Amino acid sequence: MEIKLGRLLIGKSLKTDDLKDEKLNIFWGLPILSSDAISSVAYAGEEILWVLIPVLGILSYKYMFLASLCIVFLMFMVTLSYKQTIDAYPGGGGSYIVAKDNLGTIPGLIAGASLTIGYILTVAVSASAGTAAITSAIPQLLDHKVAITVFLIVFMIIGNLRGVRESSKVFGIPTYLFLIAIITMIIWGVFKVKVLGYTPAPVYDIPKITGDITLLLFIRAFSSGCTALTGIEAVSNGVPNFKDPCQKNAKIVLGLLSVVVFVVFGGLAYLATLYHAVPTHEVTVVAQIASQVFGTNIFFYVIQATTAIILIMASNTAFAGLPLLLAYIAKDGFVPRQFTKRGKRLGYSNGIIALGIVSIILVIIFRGDTHYLLPLYAVGVFVSFTLSQWGMFIRWSRTKESGWRHKAAINGVGAFITFATAIILGITKFTSGAWVVFIVTPMFVYFMLRIKKHYSEVARQLKLCINEKPKQINLAEQKRYVIVPIDTLNKSFLKALNYARTISDNIIVFHVSVDDEATEKLCKKWDEYSVGIPIVVRKSPYRHIVGPLVKYIESEEYAAGPMDTVTVVIPQFVVTKWWGNILHNQTSLFIKTMLLKRRNIAMITIPYIIEE
Amino acid sequence: MEIKLGRLLIGKSLKTDDLKDEKLNIFWGLPILSSDAISSVAYAGEEILWVLIPVLGILSYKYMFLASLCIVFLMFMVTLSYKQTIDAYPGGGGSYIVAKDNLGTIPGLIAGASLTIGYILTVAVSASAGTAAITSAIPQLLDHKVAITVFLIVFMIIGNLRGVRESSKVFGIPTYLFLIAIITMIIWGVFKVKVLGYTPAPVYDIPKITGDITLLLFIRAFSSGCTALTGIEAVSNGVPNFKDPCQKNAKIVLGLLSVVVFVVFGGLAYLATLYHAVPTHEVTVVAQIASQVFGTNIFFYVIQATTAIILIMASNTAFAGLPLLLAYIAKDGFVPRQFTKRGKRLGYSNGIIALGIVSIILVIIFRGDTHYLLPLYAVGVFVSFTLSQWGMFIRWSRTKESGWRHKAAINGVGAFITFATAIILGITKFTSGAWVVFIVTPMFVYFMLRIKKHYSEVARQLKLCINEKPKQINLAEQKRYVIVPIDTLNKSFLKALNYARTISDNIIVFHVSVDDEATEKLCKKWDEYSVGIPIVVRKSPYRHIVGPLVKYIESEEYAAGPMDTVTVVIPQFVVTKWWGNILHNQTSLFIKTMLLKRRNIAMITIPYIIEE
Repeated sequence: MEIKLGRLLIGKSLKTDDLKDEKLNIFWGLPILSSDAISSVAYAGEEILWVLIPVLGILSYKYMFLASLCIVFLMFMVTLSYKQTIDAYPGGGGSYIVAKDNLGTIPGLIAGASLTIGYILTVAVSASAGTAAITSAIPQLLDHKVAITVFLIVFMIIGNLRGVRESSKVFGIPTYLFLIAIITMIIWGVFKVKVLGYTPAPVYDIPKITGDITLLLFIRAFSSGCTALTGIEAVSNGVPNFKDPCQKNAKIVLGLLSVVVFVVFGGLAYLATLYHAVPTHEVTVVAQIASQVFGTNIFFYVIQATTAIILIMASNTAFAGLPLLLAYIAKDGFVPRQFTKRGKRLGYSNGIIALGIVSIILVIIFRGDTHYLLPLYAVGVFVSFTLSQWGMFIRWSRTKESGWRHKAAINGVGAFITFATAIILGITKFTSGAWVVFIVTPMFVYFMLRIKKHYSEVARQLKLCINEKPKQINLAEQKRYVIVPIDTLNKSFLKALNYARTISDNIIVFHVSVDDEATEKLCKKWDEYSVGIPIVVRKSPYRHIVGPLVKYIESEEYAAGPMDTVTVVIPQFVVTKWWGNILHNQTSLFIKTMLLKRRNIAMITIPYIIEE
Repeated sequence: MEIKLGRLLIGKSLKTDDLKDEKLNIFWGLPILSSDAISSVAYAGEEILWVLIPVLGILSYKYMFLASLCIVFLMFMVTLSYKQTIDAYPGGGGSYIVAKDNLGTIPGLIAGASLTIGYILTVAVSASAGTAAITSAIPQLLDHKVAITVFLIVFMIIGNLRGVRESSKVFGIPTYLFLIAIITMIIWGVFKVKVLGYTPAPVYDIPKITGDITLLLFIRAFSSGCTALTGIEAVSNGVPNFKDPCQKNAKIVLGLLSVVVFVVFGGLAYLATLYHAVPTHEVTVVAQIASQVFGTNIFFYVIQATTAIILIMASNTAFAGLPLLLAYIAKDGFVPRQFTKRGKRLGYSNGIIALGIVSIILVIIFRGDTHYLLPLYAVGVFVSFTLSQWGMFIRWSRTKESGWRHKAAINGVGAFITFATAIILGITKFTSGAWVVFIVTPMFVYFMLRIKKHYSEVARQLKLCINEKPKQINLAEQKRYVIVPIDTLNKSFLKALNYARTISDNIIVFHVSVDDEATEKLCKKWDEYSVGIPIVVRKSPYRHIVGPLVKYIESEEYAAGPMDTVTVVIPQFVVTKWWGNILHNQTSLFIKTMLLKRRNIAMITIPYIIEE
């Protein structure tokens, strides 16, 4: 029944060869890999105004437009840089690979850790923000905020386990709906003022303040708006997710993405200036604009609904991006190898599930409140931007291929700007949560190095020496030490004993006594049975099963020397009903687990199947 | 580190032979096996008044005293009956064993199920009520009610895992403190009125009602007070917990218990009559009496504190009783066998942990509110009383030993009264929750029968036929089919291959290919290795590992017939660090689990230990 449910939710298994059919074309690649970047536009302008309005009043709109231009410029720099990355790294890459390749292991791991943290926060923050949008519309649901957010994340886990392509269709459509709605609003909003001569009636009054702009203020405004850039990384990380020619398709999507962000972000900034929107805790800037442009009618609700949906869908970018990133890092041995494994539907299911669970835990701990999570969010993204672009800069300086000066200049300037932004974000948001990043990132890097060390050590110890061949063995001369543990004299034991007899005539039956009465009965039965195999009984006062057996094997009393391999034949009866297992002491499983740690013991499991 | 923590919490392991040192003497047996019974006295009188006061007003105290007398009479009947049970069942028993023995399996299981439900509710209700007492004193903790209750239950789980005797010292002292405090209050309270001539000043006014007593009303009052009797079962169930002579000690404790309940219950009823206490939702009857007897000073708080503590400790009776009961039922095969297993400190740890977890779940579901749980509580207890006493009645009628008429009369009357009480409780509390008992009990009984059937079937299939002896085998003539799966050509594989060569010269190396590139590399390496053992490669498009192997073994291509045993030698490298396991795909574990279900496959695990 569980299997059927799983199949219903996830869909039927797919062959490895089906992989190419699961890949994305441009039309679906845009929404699935960039809903995060597009959705962040919805609040980036508002973030800028939050910084400016309390100081500058009406003057804010001028500098907001300036800051937006700077951000758009920054975005084009980042986009150009990533286009160069896609060219240089056809296997897909993004910051982790670029930094590791050109700057070394540690910078690569810092980039990987920053990205991982960023992706996890994307899911937690976006899903929470989406829920907040829903509960603002339907206040009755406010009590169930956490439950709704968790449900949404579970929904996304399932969607992504179904596979990349199908999930793109589920998650891609709302992105297009949002774009159509927002662009319609921008066109109609500008037309209404500029052509029809409509005079905007602001929803809220602008504070009567006439402070003056300072460099610090402008920098703070600029850095707050930088959230518009989160999520751009996903495209260059996800190159192998595209249909062939994947590099070309990825570059086209990246180009389209920057155009979309430019249009939507610039358009909304311009509308905010025209309609004098003021950030408040009650109504978002986008909602204020929409209510003036359309009035409170169906169009207004369409804008609100698509905004809510795209915020939820934004977290899907992380579900598309992080499992792929983890698979890269896992191939290098820095995170558990299981992240390289493809699930039934060819997605990296372990990465999808891990991301889902960690973000659900974050949502539950922070009770679905984004305020504590947001300051942690952007720093990591800009750290990874910086490492990526600095890595590309080093690369060009090293290869000196044609046009390297031009390319190095783009990446160098980009690295400088994103580095500056990362510093600003780290300082201005340090006390409100960014300090967590400075603790968690080094911890991550440490664990990744530790894991790598473990894998290297395992590989070293498993590696065959040159010309290490199997031993030549004379079967007839083999002396094999075989022990069969007994608890009850039954068919399962007899089957094990029969098997033991096929490999050796040097068998001992071993019994651990935890109950004197039962032992006496067993010994009497064994004597009556008289098959010429000795039984050895050891009392176990602390009711341990394996200890006395190991002690006996290692004792001088037993014939095997310390270098001889002793074979333990373990009878195990197997019940066919799933609930049957909880009705039996899993003694044989336990024995096997304990004996595994002994170098010279081979364990033979003889299953005896109970039909029901 | 986990081990050390466990040891710190639970204490060092104890030998089976230490069992007799863990047993209870009379002094500690009284509080540990009867804190439930004693604590229920604290609210039984109040329950009676709740029924009477709204109808009878001042007249209530007369009938309260009458009802209390009936309950005390009922208690003496039950006590006498259980004394006879202890004599007849020196191995300990209580309702389950008595009913099963004399009335048959189904009545026995009904009694067992009723008791189990009762014990679980005891923990949930008493811990919740204890928490309520705490939060009434410290209202700031009200928000953390559920957390506190869960903490208390966890505390009791740990205490009981430490062992019966030690827990008796932890949990026994508060019972004595409560008794001393209450008896002091009774003596001083009576002395103050009768000798010093103090005129009580009731805290609340008695409603000016002068209704008349009816039989139904009296019966309802009586049945509400019957909660005073819950928990008496624990003593006769726990006979083997006592030091030798255990029967005598148990009977003494039961006698003492009935005296204690008589004194405390009777005394409190008399005080309520003297001081005209009125049940309210704000202040308990005991608290009203205490504040009049002592005034609001230190003595008042001692009464309140010890009442709170004994309520919490009451749930400990269930921790002492239920694991023992489950061990009895498990020995008969009606519940999972694991309940018969003694833990490190000789307690039935699985029963203790299961009880703790289930009651924690109940507390969380009902948010620590006892109102929904109380109506479910008493019905089960009286059902088991009835079955127990009816069983004893049948027993005397059958054995006809000396004095059987007298004994049968005691049990017969007891059975009739408790049956009547059970009916009354079932009817009056049906809609407020007792209906759950009528659904859950049959379900329990059904599952227990199902489990028994499973065990019987397993035993039947494992039982050796008469004269079924091991096969005589000529080792030299044995043809053994051995397969060694390979993933990578490394030391772990080589060790497995070497072992395989010691038992057969008919070996095949088998590779499941999920990655064409890796497979090609491996085959090339194997060819270069040239040890004269064939390699068989099967592609697995759906990335399954075990399926292709089983398919190959069963195919005609492979030499073994359907009745031959095929031995699969599985290389497994073992990492010594506990966290190492999460870094490796547990493929060999998975293969073993899947192959277990095949009748004619023997699995040999060859561990290869990685040092770190």
